[in-house]
Amino acid sequence: MTTQETRLGDIGERELTRHIQGRIPRAEVPVGVGDDAAAVNLTSPALVTADVLVEGVHFVRDAAPPRLLGRKALTVNLSDIAAMGGVSRHAIVSLCLPPELELSWLDSLYDGLLERAAEVGVSIVGGNVARSPGGIVVDVTLLGEAEHPLLRSGAHPGDLVVVTGELGAAAEGVALLRQGARLHEDGQLSTTGVWTESSAEALETCLRAQLDPRPPLALARSLAERGLAHAGMDLSDGLSSDLAEMCRRSQVGARIEVAALPISPAVAALERARGGDPLPVALHGGEDYELLLAVDPTQFGALQELAGVWGVAVCGIGEFFEGEPAVHLRDDEGEHPLPVEGHDHFRAEGFEGRRE
Amino acid sequence: MTTQETRLGDIGERELTRHIQGRIPRAEVPVGVGDDAAAVNLTSPALVTADVLVEGVHFVRDAAPPRLLGRKALTVNLSDIAAMGGVSRHAIVSLCLPPELELSWLDSLYDGLLERAAEVGVSIVGGNVARSPGGIVVDVTLLGEAEHPLLRSGAHPGDLVVVTGELGAAAEGVALLRQGARLHEDGQLSTTGVWTESSAEALETCLRAQLDPRPPLALARSLAERGLAHAGMDLSDGLSSDLAEMCRRSQVGARIEVAALPISPAVAALERARGGDPLPVALHGGEDYELLLAVDPTQFGALQELAGVWGVAVCGIGEFFEGEPAVHLRDDEGEHPLPVEGHDHFRAEGFEGRRE
Repeated sequence: MTTQETRLGDIGERELTRHIQGRIPRAEVPVGVGDDAAAVNLTSPALVTADVLVEGVHFVRDAAPPRLLGRKALTVNLSDIAAMGGVSRHAIVSLCLPPELELSWLDSLYDGLLERAAEVGVSIVGGNVARSPGGIVVDVTLLGEAEHPLLRSGAHPGDLVVVTGELGAAAEGVALLRQGARLHEDGQLSTTGVWTESSAEALETCLRAQLDPRPPLALARSLAERGLAHAGMDLSDGLSSDLAEMCRRSQVGARIEVAALPISPAVAALERARGGDPLPVALHGGEDYELLLAVDPTQFGALQELAGVWGVAVCGIGEFFEGEPAVHLRDDEGEHPLPVEGHDHFRAEGFEGRRE
Repeated sequence: MTTQETRLGDIGERELTRHIQGRIPRAEVPVGVGDDAAAVNLTSPALVTADVLVEGVHFVRDAAPPRLLGRKALTVNLSDIAAMGGVSRHAIVSLCLPPELELSWLDSLYDGLLERAAEVGVSIVGGNVARSPGGIVVDVTLLGEAEHPLLRSGAHPGDLVVVTGELGAAAEGVALLRQGARLHEDGQLSTTGVWTESSAEALETCLRAQLDPRPPLALARSLAERGLAHAGMDLSDGLSSDLAEMCRRSQVGARIEVAALPISPAVAALERARGGDPLPVALHGGEDYELLLAVDPTQFGALQELAGVWGVAVCGIGEFFEGEPAVHLRDDEGEHPLPVEGHDHFRAEGFEGRRE
């Protein structure tokens, strides 16, 4: 297959654009890919968000199978629309790609994008491709709809602090990738002998959480429709950082209990095995893509019931109170302020710089 | 002013995000910047487009004053929405920035973005900022509205091939920048003594066309509203390339006349002075951001009148005919096929690589 060897620089921008357009299924929209702009029908208010994956910052090429990267590029945006209580509809894919990149890499990226889009009923309606003199940039803009958008700013004093799912697995996944563990496109693990067989399941959980996150999209939408939360956002920068942001936007304080945190058992097992501490991973690790919610205590039962329908765990981890917008952590030794230590891509050396 | 010295890496992602959010005026939308997604009201069909400026491909840092770059990042998208006959409404700004970049550079970029947005009634409703291990990437997504989108695919045999404005100035501007000419933020020219004073106006015209293009937005919208064109697109890749695309999408051939081409007088003067030929610049040079239209001959008069109202020149340069989708050029020596030679960012070394 000569296609396997073809590099983007061999093809040229126009042919490449047509190649990509040829792969995208016709969308049921007034104007799809291929014109100056796409035309779509959306109910108001329409939601719009954009999130980008940058090589060397959000991923490294040899650790991120392109199909999974394509899935994730869409998923991080699906998570934002869902956290607003919305339904995702249409995506625009903007790529900056180095000319030495293989066409097969791009095809796999699109396999993942299209696969994920089909799973959630999203149509790709446009985009563009530009040469990158540096690394790969995958920037997806996602359009959606929400009758009653769920905001970060609605938390009331007395509301419960609620999170879905488990915390820390995606951040643990980054640490594992840095140590050389890999999850391949076919689902195969390669662990370069660092870990025992008994930890394979925990390894896979964390690598998958990092490389192919699954936010609770349906739960987010249906809880917003039923008005079961006063405020919501997705956990992308880490609990400490995101909860501080919700406090700031809602002008309330929050107190959370260490004992109540749904730390991922996989993280607990792996950290225990290496003599580490799972708590900071769960508190500050980014990219959980779970929901952070402010829930009236009288509605927590209804939320639990609804979450059960969707097979998602929900966990009350503390409460909001009237006071300075800051987060406090309560553990065996009492209550103390929780510093914001979510991952900061600007200050950090980044993924690549810190690889081991 | 210590701010002048502050670099993005000194600040961190969260503070940087808040700094940017603090600069963006409150938009009259249900949810503006600062939440997981923005919520906007749009009539259907809504238009959406995304276009990106990549450092080293679309611009070089020392030749593109950041304020003008900010203006252009929005303008290239305004041009797409206008070419669809639409009105631009809301923008999302996605930035990848190296940590060593000065905050003052980012502030100037936003000066330009906000200034241009205010000129055209667009509100910035969201975006994100990511660290770039390579160069700067400015990716803008623009939302608009159009009751009757004007497509590339509507050209009929017998329609006139019409362009607005003049051709070639933006591409000549790139050549001038490569030779060391500069247009500074304050409008001052620096020409490093290569050109005589008599060419200052021509130089400025071309540099401004490259650095701060002004597409005929209002004309585009009103001609679409009045149904004065069968097909339309903006000239971004160059006339030969864009006209070939319109032919391909409309399944018609096109014949254009060299004598009729509205070659920019500034390009003609500068090319004459250097012993060059302005014709290839006008035929193949990119980034004119003028309109390419397919117009029924019976409507050309009405189009001319409308264009006069908006102070825009329109020029019939040939006609579409039933036949293979290809472009033919007629000159003194007869008619011959016009090869597609628009600038190709993937194949070319790019702006930076070719600097002199």
